[in-house]
Amino acid sequence: MVTRLSSFFFRSLREDPADAEVISHKLLVRAAYIRRQAPGVFAWLPLGLRVKAKLEQIVRDEMSAAGAQEVHFPALMPREPYEATNRWTEYGDGIFRLKDRHDADYLLAPTHEEAFTLLVKDLYSSYKDLPLTIYQIQDKYRDEARPRAGLLRGREFTMKDAYSFDYTDEGLDASYQAQRDAYERIFTRLGLEYAIVKADAGAMGGSKSEEFLHPTPIGEDTFVRSEGGYTANVEAFETQPPAVLPIVEGAPVVFDSPNTPTIQTLVDHLNAHVEKPGGGEWTAADTLKNVVLALTHLDGTRELVVVAVPGDRDVDDKRVEVAFQPAEVSPATEDDFTANPALVKGYIGPWTADGAVLGEESTSGIRYLVDPRVVEGSAWVTGANEHEKHLHSLVYGRDFTADGVVDVASVREGDIAPDGTPITLERGMEIGHVFQLGRKYAEALGLKVLDQNGKLVTVTMGSYGIGTTRILAAIAELNNDDKGLIWPAAIAPFDVHVVATGKGEDALNLGEQISVQLEAAGLDVLFDDRPKVSPGVKFGDAELIGVPQLLVVGRGAADGEVELWDRRSGEREVVPTAEAVARLTQR
Amino acid sequence: MVTRLSSFFFRSLREDPADAEVISHKLLVRAAYIRRQAPGVFAWLPLGLRVKAKLEQIVRDEMSAAGAQEVHFPALMPREPYEATNRWTEYGDGIFRLKDRHDADYLLAPTHEEAFTLLVKDLYSSYKDLPLTIYQIQDKYRDEARPRAGLLRGREFTMKDAYSFDYTDEGLDASYQAQRDAYERIFTRLGLEYAIVKADAGAMGGSKSEEFLHPTPIGEDTFVRSEGGYTANVEAFETQPPAVLPIVEGAPVVFDSPNTPTIQTLVDHLNAHVEKPGGGEWTAADTLKNVVLALTHLDGTRELVVVAVPGDRDVDDKRVEVAFQPAEVSPATEDDFTANPALVKGYIGPWTADGAVLGEESTSGIRYLVDPRVVEGSAWVTGANEHEKHLHSLVYGRDFTADGVVDVASVREGDIAPDGTPITLERGMEIGHVFQLGRKYAEALGLKVLDQNGKLVTVTMGSYGIGTTRILAAIAELNNDDKGLIWPAAIAPFDVHVVATGKGEDALNLGEQISVQLEAAGLDVLFDDRPKVSPGVKFGDAELIGVPQLLVVGRGAADGEVELWDRRSGEREVVPTAEAVARLTQR
Repeated sequence: MVTRLSSFFFRSLREDPADAEVISHKLLVRAAYIRRQAPGVFAWLPLGLRVKAKLEQIVRDEMSAAGAQEVHFPALMPREPYEATNRWTEYGDGIFRLKDRHDADYLLAPTHEEAFTLLVKDLYSSYKDLPLTIYQIQDKYRDEARPRAGLLRGREFTMKDAYSFDYTDEGLDASYQAQRDAYERIFTRLGLEYAIVKADAGAMGGSKSEEFLHPTPIGEDTFVRSEGGYTANVEAFETQPPAVLPIVEGAPVVFDSPNTPTIQTLVDHLNAHVEKPGGGEWTAADTLKNVVLALTHLDGTRELVVVAVPGDRDVDDKRVEVAFQPAEVSPATEDDFTANPALVKGYIGPWTADGAVLGEESTSGIRYLVDPRVVEGSAWVTGANEHEKHLHSLVYGRDFTADGVVDVASVREGDIAPDGTPITLERGMEIGHVFQLGRKYAEALGLKVLDQNGKLVTVTMGSYGIGTTRILAAIAELNNDDKGLIWPAAIAPFDVHVVATGKGEDALNLGEQISVQLEAAGLDVLFDDRPKVSPGVKFGDAELIGVPQLLVVGRGAADGEVELWDRRSGEREVVPTAEAVARLTQR
Repeated sequence: MVTRLSSFFFRSLREDPADAEVISHKLLVRAAYIRRQAPGVFAWLPLGLRVKAKLEQIVRDEMSAAGAQEVHFPALMPREPYEATNRWTEYGDGIFRLKDRHDADYLLAPTHEEAFTLLVKDLYSSYKDLPLTIYQIQDKYRDEARPRAGLLRGREFTMKDAYSFDYTDEGLDASYQAQRDAYERIFTRLGLEYAIVKADAGAMGGSKSEEFLHPTPIGEDTFVRSEGGYTANVEAFETQPPAVLPIVEGAPVVFDSPNTPTIQTLVDHLNAHVEKPGGGEWTAADTLKNVVLALTHLDGTRELVVVAVPGDRDVDDKRVEVAFQPAEVSPATEDDFTANPALVKGYIGPWTADGAVLGEESTSGIRYLVDPRVVEGSAWVTGANEHEKHLHSLVYGRDFTADGVVDVASVREGDIAPDGTPITLERGMEIGHVFQLGRKYAEALGLKVLDQNGKLVTVTMGSYGIGTTRILAAIAELNNDDKGLIWPAAIAPFDVHVVATGKGEDALNLGEQISVQLEAAGLDVLFDDRPKVSPGVKFGDAELIGVPQLLVVGRGAADGEVELWDRRSGEREVVPTAEAVARLTQR
C-alpha cells in the first residue's frame, strides 16, 4: 500500500529540541521519527518504526544465518536469579528496581544472562543438546545518570542479545566466532565502519571480550589503534614493561624539596638543585606519583591502597575502575590521611631512611601497587614520607618493593602496543560487544549437562550484544547534511519518495499512478500528495526525512518527464517517466 | 530455511506445571511455547514466538486495512501525564510504580491514552490533520492480585491498543466503527467466536463502549444475551423498570417481626402472621433489602449510602463497583452503625411512623438509592427502623422517596432485556474492547485543533484494545485434545510438520528432500530429523506441538509413499510422495 503523506502521521518541526546535543537526536525528532517521553525514553513514530523494523530484520537475518534461534524474555524480571550471581547488588544505581503489590522485588532487565542460563538448565541436560545459541531483540532498561544524546544512550533501548551454550572451550570459541562473524556482516550491510577492539569484560566477568566500536568524534569511548593493527579500548590497553635493569649498588638520596606541590615544580627544583646521576635533565618520567585511593568492596569493607605511576602520567579513572572492580574506587579523604600518619600528604613514598613504609615488607597494612614501568632496577624520585623532603635514586628491587602491579596510568599517543608499534588514540561508540563468559553464570546457577562419558560438566557460555536503537542513531549521525537525514537504502523508511509539485490535479494523478506502479514492483513508496503545500515545503520535508531516492512529478509531467533526485549526491536528472520507473525498480 | 528439530530449541515436558489451572497454560508450557519467569510473567520460546508473530501480523494487516498507523511507545512512562487525568491515583494497586535514581516517579504503562493524546497535541493543530487513528502492539503491565491462568491474565502481556482522534462526534462514530469492523475481521480470521456486548466504560470514562467477549466456561466475565439478540456484560445490563402504578390511599402497617434475620425468615413470618393485601402468598420479591455501603471518594472523604434492592436479589459487587466508580466501595462497619443510630441494623427502612429516615426528605444525611424496580406506586415490606419491627404496604411516592436510582441488583436468567425478551447468562473472556472516550482525555490534556472556522475545538477520541497474548491463549484453550494443541492454520507455528520415522538414513534423506521442497514452495516446515528418537516419541511431540498438517516419512518411503495426517480430524492417508507435496503446497 502506498503511504500518502496527506494522511501519514508526520509533522516536521522547525526547531531543534531543546535537550538535543547531537545531530542524530535533533534530526530524528525534527523529522518525526521519534518523540521524547522522559529523559532517555522515546516513542517511535511511523517513520522511525519503519527504520527500526528494517534494521531489526537485518539483525534477525544474520542471527538466523549464524544458527541462532529467537526467543523473547520479559523486561520485568524477579530479583532471585540476579541475586544468585550477585548482580542485583553489583548493578548499583544503574538499574530500575521495583516491587509488586506483594512486596516482591523486581528489576527492569538491563541484560538477561541469568534468565537464559536458567531456561537452558530447565530444558536441556545433555551434551547432545549443545551447542545452542539463542537470542532476543528486546527492550532493555538502564537508569543512566545522564541520559543524553537521544537514542545513543537511552534509558529504554532495544538490544539484540544472544547467549551461546557449549560444553567445551573449543565449542565456545566456535560459537563466539559465529556471532563475531555475524556482527561483521551486520555492520557491513549497514555501511557502518567499525573497529574490533580488545575489551575488558567489565561487570560481565569472563575471559575474552571484544567490542565493536564505531569511530566517531562523539563516541564516549576512547580506543587505541597501533600502526601494526592492534586495537583495544583504553581500559583494556596493556602497557608494555621496559626491560629489567641490573640493580646497581648504592642507596637512595634524601633531599629538601620546599615549594614543590606539583610534579612540574618538583622537576624544576631537581634541575635547579640536584645533579642527575648519569647526567642529563630530570624529567617528570623520572618521578613516581603516589596516589591514595579508597576501595569499597562488595561486602562493604573499605580499604586504602596507594598506586604509583610515572610522574608524567595521571591515574586514568576508567582504567582504575576496571582494575579494581567489583570494588568501587574513590579518592582518599582528609580523614584517611589523619587516620594514617604514615601517609604524609604531598610527600608519600614507599621508603624512608628507616625502612619500608609501603610495599610487601611494610607494616602499614596499606597495599602498594605500581605501574608496569616500575621494573626491577629502575630508579625513581619519590616523596620521603617527611614534610618537604623527597628521595632520588630509589631503586625498585633494592630499596623498595610492591604488593602488586596495576596498569592504570593514562594511555598516550605514541605508547607502544603489544605488537611493538606506536599507538594513536581515537574516539569510538560501542555498537556491539562479544563476550566469552566462560562458566561463571553456569556455575552460579548450576547449569550442567552430561558429557559423552555420562559425567556432569558445567556449561560454558558466551554473551553477544548489539544495541539496535543505538546503531540506528549512529547511522543517522553518520548520514546527514545540513538539510536533513540521508538513509542508506538498507534501512531507509521508504525506497522512493514521490513528490508531486504541479499545481493542478495532473501532477497528483501522475504521482499517484507512478507510486502505485513502484509499490506493485515491491518498493516501499512515500507519496507526497498534499494538495495545498508548496513545492518548497515538500522538498524541505523530503530532504529532512531522507529517503535516498526522490522522484519529482512537476512541470515536465505534461511532456511525460519526471525528475530523479539522488538525496545523497544531490544529483538531479530529468528522464522519461517510464525510464524513471524502470530504473528505480531495477535496483 | 527448514527448521530441524534436532537443533531446534525445544523440549517437551511430561508434567503439567504445578501452577497451571487451565489447559492452554498447561499445554503451552509442556510444548515449550512459553516459560514462566515470575507469576504472570512469561518468556517466549521459539515455537511461541512464531505463533505470536503470526497473530500480530494478522492484527497489523487489519489495522492497516482500517487506516490505522503503527507507532510504539515506551513501557516506562513518567507520572505527569497520568497525574493530569488522575489515573496515577485511580489505578490504585493495579499498576507497577517505580522511581528513577533522581527520585522521579514512573509507571509501567497499563495503557497509553495520555501519551497518545499528548503526542497528537504536540504534532497536530488543525482539523485538516484529522481523522487520525494510531496504534501500537506493545508489552503492557498490570499488577494483578492473582495472576493465574497463564497468558489469559498475565502481569506482562502484549496488547494492540489503538487511539482515534476526530473533531466531530460523527467522525468519532466512523473511527469507532472502523476499529469495530477490523476487530470482527480479526476474530473471524482467527476462528474465534465472539459476542459484542454493551459494556460499561469503567476507568476509561467516556460514553460508548463495547466488549468483544469470547464465550467460554473459563471466562472471568459473565454476560447477558437475550432471545432477541441484545448482549451486555453484567455490569452494563440495564434493568427494565416495571410500569408505574397508581398510588392507592392508605398507610403502611407496622408489624412485629421477631427472629427474622434473613429475607426467607421474614417471608415465612409474613405468610404465617400477616395477611397480604390483595391476597396471595408473600414472596421475597415483595420485600426491600436495604444494604449500607461505605464509599471512599477520590479526595479521601468517606460517605455512607443505603442501597435498596428487591429482597429476592443480592447487591452485585461488580455492578456496585461500576455504579459508584471512581469511589471505592466497602461494606459498612460496626463503627458506622454505632455512629449512625438512625440505621437499626437488621431493621433498616426508609420510613418510620415519625417520618422519613432515608430518602430525599430525610435529615440523616445518608443518601438512599433504590433499584429501578422501586417505581412510583409500588408497595414494599421493609424494616421499620426499630428492633424486631417491620412495615408492609410502604408505597414509593406516597410513604417514602429516594435520592436516586441505582441499578446494582444481581442479574438473573429470565430477566427481561431492553429488547423485551428474556435473557440467559453466559461466561465469556474479554478479547477486545472498543471505547468512545469522547473529550475526557483531550480536555484534561488540552488537545484542541482549529476547525473550519478558525475556532479551537476539543478533539474527541476513541480507544481500542485487543490483548494479543490473551487471544493466543484463548485460541490454544479452544483448539486442543487430550494429546496436545491443534493450531488453526492462520497462526500455526509451522504449516507442515514432517516426521521421519524409518530406522536408516533413507527416511531421513527423503524427509529432508520433502522439507526443502515444501519450504521452497513458501511453507514453514518443521522437520523432525532426530536420528535416535523413537517414532512414538516423535508422534507424541508432534501431537503436543499441534502443527495442523503432518507428513510422515516411514515404512512406505521405499515405495515412494508417505502418510498425510490431519492433526485435527486425526485422519491419515497414504499417498505418493509427489502428490503429498502437491496437496500441501496447493492450499
